[in-house]
Amino acid sequence: MSTVIKNGTIVTADLTYEADVLIENGVITEIGKGLSGNEELDATGCYVMPGGIDPHVHLEMPFMGTYSSDDFESGTRAGLAGGTTMVVDFCLPNQGESLLDAIKRWDNKSTRANCDYSFHMAVTWWGEQVFNDMQTVVQQRGINTFKHFLAYKGALMVNDDELFASFNRLSELGAIAMVHAENGDVVAELTAMLIAEGNTGPEGHAYSRPSQVEGEATNRAIMIADMAGVPLYVVHTSCEEAHEAIRRARQQGKRVWGEPLIQHLTLDEREYFVDDWDHAARRVMSPPFRDARHQESLWAGLQSGSLSVVATDHCAFTTEQKRYGVGDFSKIPNGTGGLEDRMPMLWTHGVATGRLTPNEFVAVTSTNIAKILNCYPKKGAVLVGADADLVVWDPEKEKTITAGNQQSAIDYNVFEGKHVKGLPRYTLTRGQVAVADGEIKTQEGHGKFVSRDANGTVNKALSTWKDLTAPRPVRRTGIPATGV
Amino acid sequence: MSTVIKNGTIVTADLTYEADVLIENGVITEIGKGLSGNEELDATGCYVMPGGIDPHVHLEMPFMGTYSSDDFESGTRAGLAGGTTMVVDFCLPNQGESLLDAIKRWDNKSTRANCDYSFHMAVTWWGEQVFNDMQTVVQQRGINTFKHFLAYKGALMVNDDELFASFNRLSELGAIAMVHAENGDVVAELTAMLIAEGNTGPEGHAYSRPSQVEGEATNRAIMIADMAGVPLYVVHTSCEEAHEAIRRARQQGKRVWGEPLIQHLTLDEREYFVDDWDHAARRVMSPPFRDARHQESLWAGLQSGSLSVVATDHCAFTTEQKRYGVGDFSKIPNGTGGLEDRMPMLWTHGVATGRLTPNEFVAVTSTNIAKILNCYPKKGAVLVGADADLVVWDPEKEKTITAGNQQSAIDYNVFEGKHVKGLPRYTLTRGQVAVADGEIKTQEGHGKFVSRDANGTVNKALSTWKDLTAPRPVRRTGIPATGV
Amino acid sequence: MSTVIKNGTIVTADLTYEADVLIENGVITEIGKGLSGNEELDATGCYVMPGGIDPHVHLEMPFMGTYSSDDFESGTRAGLAGGTTMVVDFCLPNQGESLLDAIKRWDNKSTRANCDYSFHMAVTWWGEQVFNDMQTVVQQRGINTFKHFLAYKGALMVNDDELFASFNRLSELGAIAMVHAENGDVVAELTAMLIAEGNTGPEGHAYSRPSQVEGEATNRAIMIADMAGVPLYVVHTSCEEAHEAIRRARQQGKRVWGEPLIQHLTLDEREYFVDDWDHAARRVMSPPFRDARHQESLWAGLQSGSLSVVATDHCAFTTEQKRYGVGDFSKIPNGTGGLEDRMPMLWTHGVATGRLTPNEFVAVTSTNIAKILNCYPKKGAVLVGADADLVVWDPEKEKTITAGNQQSAIDYNVFEGKHVKGLPRYTLTRGQVAVADGEIKTQEGHGKFVSRDANGTVNKALSTWKDLTAPRPVRRTGIPATGV
Amino acid sequence: MSTVIKNGTIVTADLTYEADVLIENGVITEIGKGLSGNEELDATGCYVMPGGIDPHVHLEMPFMGTYSSDDFESGTRAGLAGGTTMVVDFCLPNQGESLLDAIKRWDNKSTRANCDYSFHMAVTWWGEQVFNDMQTVVQQRGINTFKHFLAYKGALMVNDDELFASFNRLSELGAIAMVHAENGDVVAELTAMLIAEGNTGPEGHAYSRPSQVEGEATNRAIMIADMAGVPLYVVHTSCEEAHEAIRRARQQGKRVWGEPLIQHLTLDEREYFVDDWDHAARRVMSPPFRDARHQESLWAGLQSGSLSVVATDHCAFTTEQKRYGVGDFSKIPNGTGGLEDRMPMLWTHGVATGRLTPNEFVAVTSTNIAKILNCYPKKGAVLVGADADLVVWDPEKEKTITAGNQQSAIDYNVFEGKHVKGLPRYTLTRGQVAVADGEIKTQEGHGKFVSRDANGTVNKALSTWKDLTAPRPVRRTGIPATGV
Repeated sequence: MSTVIKNGTIVTADLTYEADVLIENGVITEIGKGLSGNEELDATGCYVMPGGIDPHVHLEMPFMGTYSSDDFESGTRAGLAGGTTMVVDFCLPNQGESLLDAIKRWDNKSTRANCDYSFHMAVTWWGEQVFNDMQTVVQQRGINTFKHFLAYKGALMVNDDELFASFNRLSELGAIAMVHAENGDVVAELTAMLIAEGNTGPEGHAYSRPSQVEGEATNRAIMIADMAGVPLYVVHTSCEEAHEAIRRARQQGKRVWGEPLIQHLTLDEREYFVDDWDHAARRVMSPPFRDARHQESLWAGLQSGSLSVVATDHCAFTTEQKRYGVGDFSKIPNGTGGLEDRMPMLWTHGVATGRLTPNEFVAVTSTNIAKILNCYPKKGAVLVGADADLVVWDPEKEKTITAGNQQSAIDYNVFEGKHVKGLPRYTLTRGQVAVADGEIKTQEGHGKFVSRDANGTVNKALSTWKDLTAPRPVRRTGIPATGV
Repeated sequence: MSTVIKNGTIVTADLTYEADVLIENGVITEIGKGLSGNEELDATGCYVMPGGIDPHVHLEMPFMGTYSSDDFESGTRAGLAGGTTMVVDFCLPNQGESLLDAIKRWDNKSTRANCDYSFHMAVTWWGEQVFNDMQTVVQQRGINTFKHFLAYKGALMVNDDELFASFNRLSELGAIAMVHAENGDVVAELTAMLIAEGNTGPEGHAYSRPSQVEGEATNRAIMIADMAGVPLYVVHTSCEEAHEAIRRARQQGKRVWGEPLIQHLTLDEREYFVDDWDHAARRVMSPPFRDARHQESLWAGLQSGSLSVVATDHCAFTTEQKRYGVGDFSKIPNGTGGLEDRMPMLWTHGVATGRLTPNEFVAVTSTNIAKILNCYPKKGAVLVGADADLVVWDPEKEKTITAGNQQSAIDYNVFEGKHVKGLPRYTLTRGQVAVADGEIKTQEGHGKFVSRDANGTVNKALSTWKDLTAPRPVRRTGIPATGV
Repeated sequence: MSTVIKNGTIVTADLTYEADVLIENGVITEIGKGLSGNEELDATGCYVMPGGIDPHVHLEMPFMGTYSSDDFESGTRAGLAGGTTMVVDFCLPNQGESLLDAIKRWDNKSTRANCDYSFHMAVTWWGEQVFNDMQTVVQQRGINTFKHFLAYKGALMVNDDELFASFNRLSELGAIAMVHAENGDVVAELTAMLIAEGNTGPEGHAYSRPSQVEGEATNRAIMIADMAGVPLYVVHTSCEEAHEAIRRARQQGKRVWGEPLIQHLTLDEREYFVDDWDHAARRVMSPPFRDARHQESLWAGLQSGSLSVVATDHCAFTTEQKRYGVGDFSKIPNGTGGLEDRMPMLWTHGVATGRLTPNEFVAVTSTNIAKILNCYPKKGAVLVGADADLVVWDPEKEKTITAGNQQSAIDYNVFEGKHVKGLPRYTLTRGQVAVADGEIKTQEGHGKFVSRDANGTVNKALSTWKDLTAPRPVRRTGIPATGV
Repeated sequence: MSTVIKNGTIVTADLTYEADVLIENGVITEIGKGLSGNEELDATGCYVMPGGIDPHVHLEMPFMGTYSSDDFESGTRAGLAGGTTMVVDFCLPNQGESLLDAIKRWDNKSTRANCDYSFHMAVTWWGEQVFNDMQTVVQQRGINTFKHFLAYKGALMVNDDELFASFNRLSELGAIAMVHAENGDVVAELTAMLIAEGNTGPEGHAYSRPSQVEGEATNRAIMIADMAGVPLYVVHTSCEEAHEAIRRARQQGKRVWGEPLIQHLTLDEREYFVDDWDHAARRVMSPPFRDARHQESLWAGLQSGSLSVVATDHCAFTTEQKRYGVGDFSKIPNGTGGLEDRMPMLWTHGVATGRLTPNEFVAVTSTNIAKILNCYPKKGAVLVGADADLVVWDPEKEKTITAGNQQSAIDYNVFEGKHVKGLPRYTLTRGQVAVADGEIKTQEGHGKFVSRDANGTVNKALSTWKDLTAPRPVRRTGIPATGV
């Protein structure tokens, strides 16, 4: 059984050329002109690109006795509908829970996935067990990325000493540090002050997490990663302050990546100031939406390479769940959707405007991610031997985004009413046609876990440099007796 | 009884002109040509300037059951010998001690001072008593500056939530926040790692406190001060990273001041790499000396105004005390001298090279300090009505600095062997001639406490702006029922 | 005959205190409590401040066979009405004209001035005569500031080699370089392209002079001044790009000052996009108004000290004159008014909002200017011996700006409809009460030329540094024979 | 006839994997395990990488009646010896000469090339003929890059208006602007001043071209390119000031690339201060070598991506030619060698230290260049269908660089005595083994011209954005009659 994508223009992170793609057993086996196969997909007028990878999702995330409403089934279905063929979720251990037990819980949830997926591990507490588990996670479970929360005080947040200890451990293991960068102490205090002052509406959420607290935490995480000699991946970079810290670090040769979200690139804080409480609350996420100045900064970061990838932090809560926070914004579950819309929104606002080339679009939605996470070229590539995770992108296909037609399980869409031009004609996950001209043909459970090795090339280079420049003691000819 | 300084050129932060200065009862009563008085001091060929103010000293500081070796008597005598007529020390409460009790201890020590002095209050722990004491300290004890240590974990260090709480309190009281900015968590870990690796010599001190940890903490303190709406004074800014954070904040209109030390401006890290353990240990202070790149940054900061004042952090430990740290650099008492040498060293390396004008010299050694600390023009001015804290500066007088001839009680000098040109002919403290052509005539106990009010103009302006831009709730026409 | 200002609060660039001011023969002769004089001006509830200095005006400027409509009489009258007691105009030599002849023309025009004034000299062409005249201008005519236009190609513009030659000459003479910084080549081309494309309206003026061309020219002038070793004053800094160049230079210790205009601080580019052609054309000046991002940058510059003074570039053309440019924006005479409104607008938007302290207001409207231009403390000070150029400022007095009530000769006001709070109760020019509670009592011809010496302290310091760091040849032991 | 490279590890800009490479007719026809061919090259222990591309050489460049001493034969031989398989030279038209005539001259010289090559066109004068020729050059001669000299006043230099005109033309043609960025006016003046002061030695060359003049010109070129809407490639970026301008531009989303040279990355200004005149003169190039601060900036730029490629500006003059400048540094022919040493020097100082990954090494020496110049993947790739321009890189092979063993025709080497580890085992140019284990087997005339199309993806995206944001006239309801 073979499939061939015919008559399209292949667009990768660094090439644009006309060729057909032959797929056998879920893998690309030939790229060239005039290929044929059992099944033929017509890509005339379309770009054949690596399927999108969303490096930042939370599916069926436990929350206050319930779960975020998109699970691995609906979430990956939504992703495929929008051209995304792989997602990376976060294993969140409970306080005191073994990392390996947390993975088991995630293994169970992910069996329903329609496309391939991987996990980041979160370090939500610190102790000898975590220290030891980390090695197992890296070496036996194929996870090389570990997220740390500098926010969510009293829950997920870790302190600087824990952060440094964990980063040092990651450096030893050849893994990559990730951070949610907001100063949790200040957020907690601002939240309390705002509520005390009667600022209880959803806009209070934005007030409680100004860009300054994100910039500060980003800067702090960068310093600690530098001291530990570990590469750093900053999730959901939403503002100029955080981007500035990342840029400044990179300009000093540090190995830091920033991940803006499609929401922050295209939506702004005015969403929180509308009269409709539900509208505002549905947009509550951390970090909150910012303003035009920050958006320009993020776009320029994608153009210049100081920001590396575009994600969604897809974590969908229903309107009903959002209403937990009526009267107290701090109880509004944090999270928005976007998995289905990331690719069309970025194409429309990025490629069609000339901000990004089509190749850069592929880079930031797929290839850069696969490289950083170390699953390239299995993922993120149109190469012989690569998984046939592909999207046949029709630049002329258009629609108006509306919750009524979406795959996601939630009852609204933060991009409601946005017109997009540039949509998948076909989406293939390991060769299986999951979306065909708008028709959903996903197979629950088709998705497999993608194992990712440690000790990537950046880790190796950084370790070499850190060894070369490590502090060395002065050898003295004589040392006095102690003064005590 | 009157004194007149004749035939000199008055140099202030903004003026240079020829005039005599008449002093009565410790106060300047007339400035003009052809004045006369009972005592006449010849200032021919000299500049008559406001006496130096050192905003950062630690005299007779308690340490491991003993004290830093310069007390208020020898310390202020050293200051006067070098043209400094006022010092500001730090009251350091013990854990759990009332701020007012700490002041009493400092009151006792300072009775021996040869020149006027003031105190900064340190916030070394946090609790309701501290919160309440702060108001008394500000409103009844004439102290408007409160220092916080982000380093010295397990001792003086406060955490971010305590910092934010204290800064908010200062904002209410119209006072000014100060920080010692180094990331104490990272310093503690690096220290442990270095010692574990056998990096136990004095150079290990420098390795344990790289400029990155100072830059990070400076940036963090700035963000927290911004959130609290309080002006911030960063002590001993030693490096480009910290200066960059200060510059960046100022460029955004934030009210932040940086204080480089004369040591960091003129000495560098090579001091720690000499063979002589004592030599290296005597230079151990926090932050440690840096390299030429950082020095250039600090000088440019003084030139451009992004750094505001020059201090010493004078905290003198004898060689014997330094040797507590043989075999373990973390036990070397932190601190160096400089009170006597700040003015001549800055003149020689700053004014004589053309980096600074004579007026800028006065600004950064005296007038800016008096303005920021809110004791101008009582101090830092050559104006009728101002205290006659004056130095008659002879730009042709020169010497080679050596411990053998110094006033300070310690047995070495970190500037040993440096040649300076530009020294006091006379130093007057409230009219009393304390130094005359190298002869020391100080009067123990002459010095008085300088009270400093809160609610300076910068505090007022900042509060106005923060009120104007405070978060305001959206008034909604309808809010749904809660989802719970 | 003496005048005393009673019961006010004196506000200078560095002091705020209650005192009366006694004036005799146009000079301040005493400051203190309980003074009396022949004439008493009540300053109860008011601030007594140094009168404003506008360092950048063009009165009766020759233009296309006519003149800008405010001459030295109406212009200085407008200034006094708004609290400004000194203006600095620009002598503009014609091509080939001697600098001294140009001064004569300006001398003639300025005889009608109601307040004191000084001149900057413009270098509008280059040659041996200019080179020679410069010395005379500096040493005999009391002018130490020389302006160069990098824009107005084919008219006032000088090229880089001329600029460097002139800057070198200024360095020798101890004078200060000034620049109008816009890239004239690019402006000329953009103008031609826009008109060719049918972009002929007033908004085309803004399109033809984007902030980038100002930033570039500022950066270029800074480099050339640095190479020549001359301090640089950049007039009408209107945008972040130019401000960034100035900040960057200052951060490297360079001696550069930036001068934002009150117009750029408070008005934005939307003025050019209104339907009313006259409205838009009346706002045409170079550089054009910018947007909020640039305004925030300018305000922060004043707060941090990276920008030094606030001016107006007052150069008033009537609506009739503006209409020369109907159908071709490049023919709209460049210039707006502001002399009368600078102080109240800056107070209202700067001090009342908390962006600036009252002392900073005095610094940027008066004292800093006097220091930079080297006429301090004759001007810009409230000191015994200083000229009694004073404004008694009533912070509660308010009005709505309207052309109908203004002193300026033009028929509109770019601030029309703006409400200001904070206005002069009295304005005194060398002791003469020119404005009293809104009543105009100016005396035509009262104003005198203010001579300003070269070799200020900044020039001296910069020369010392440049000598110290000048290139020195390597002394070689042997040099080969030439290869030719 | 086929060749196979066996047992090596393929290293490209984004992949590292083990595979053999089969070559037929100069093209890669298969990549995989266990391939065989007529000729087998053993790559055991080696990396198989795209051959280096040097985007910046001057071979047999006309100069003062003679020529730079490496011609296309010796130059490309030197390149191949060091792993470089393609060079790009600059066609330099004489004043008034047709661009097409200049190409003819270069066509003649390049017939002897041992490897493939391409040309950049220089715009050395401006006029209608140049304007017209540009289209022919782009559309018929396969040259899409046009260099402009902002230095060399009176010779190659163009003024800002010419620059803008040329950049506008390039924008229309979909081509790329290049600049040699030094302010030629200032360099000319500084040169004259230095020589007048007796600073005639080779160090005077460095004094005459400080980093500031490069930074300024870079900034200016960026602004003009931005106004014209054309991508910009800045050659030989040697200093922080220029890099800062590039970084700042990229951070604003501008399309600018910087090209550091291997010389500036590894050599510094101390070379000019040695006693030996010949040693110093041999290092004379523009821009001159800088100091450690600048070097760190350049390395960090390669790491972060703010600088894109590494070149040599190879332009070799013999010692005899260099001696033209005895007694007058301005007569020393500008240029150094490096073609043979670029790759081993960068590997040794970049990859072996951990600054760069092996993939980044490939990117900056080959792939990025091919992409920017639009000849990828014909060049710069290890892909089926790509030209077999390959280097089999032995990371364990080492040598000490010395002129005695080099291929270049000159009698010295600026890297003399430097030890390198990492050298070619084989270099192949379109499948022909030109270097085999140190043995040179080049074939004169084997090299072919590489045609490069305009309208690359970056040009297209930039044009789209510029169209979207172009100035648009306000449509007014009524416009007054003109005032004239």
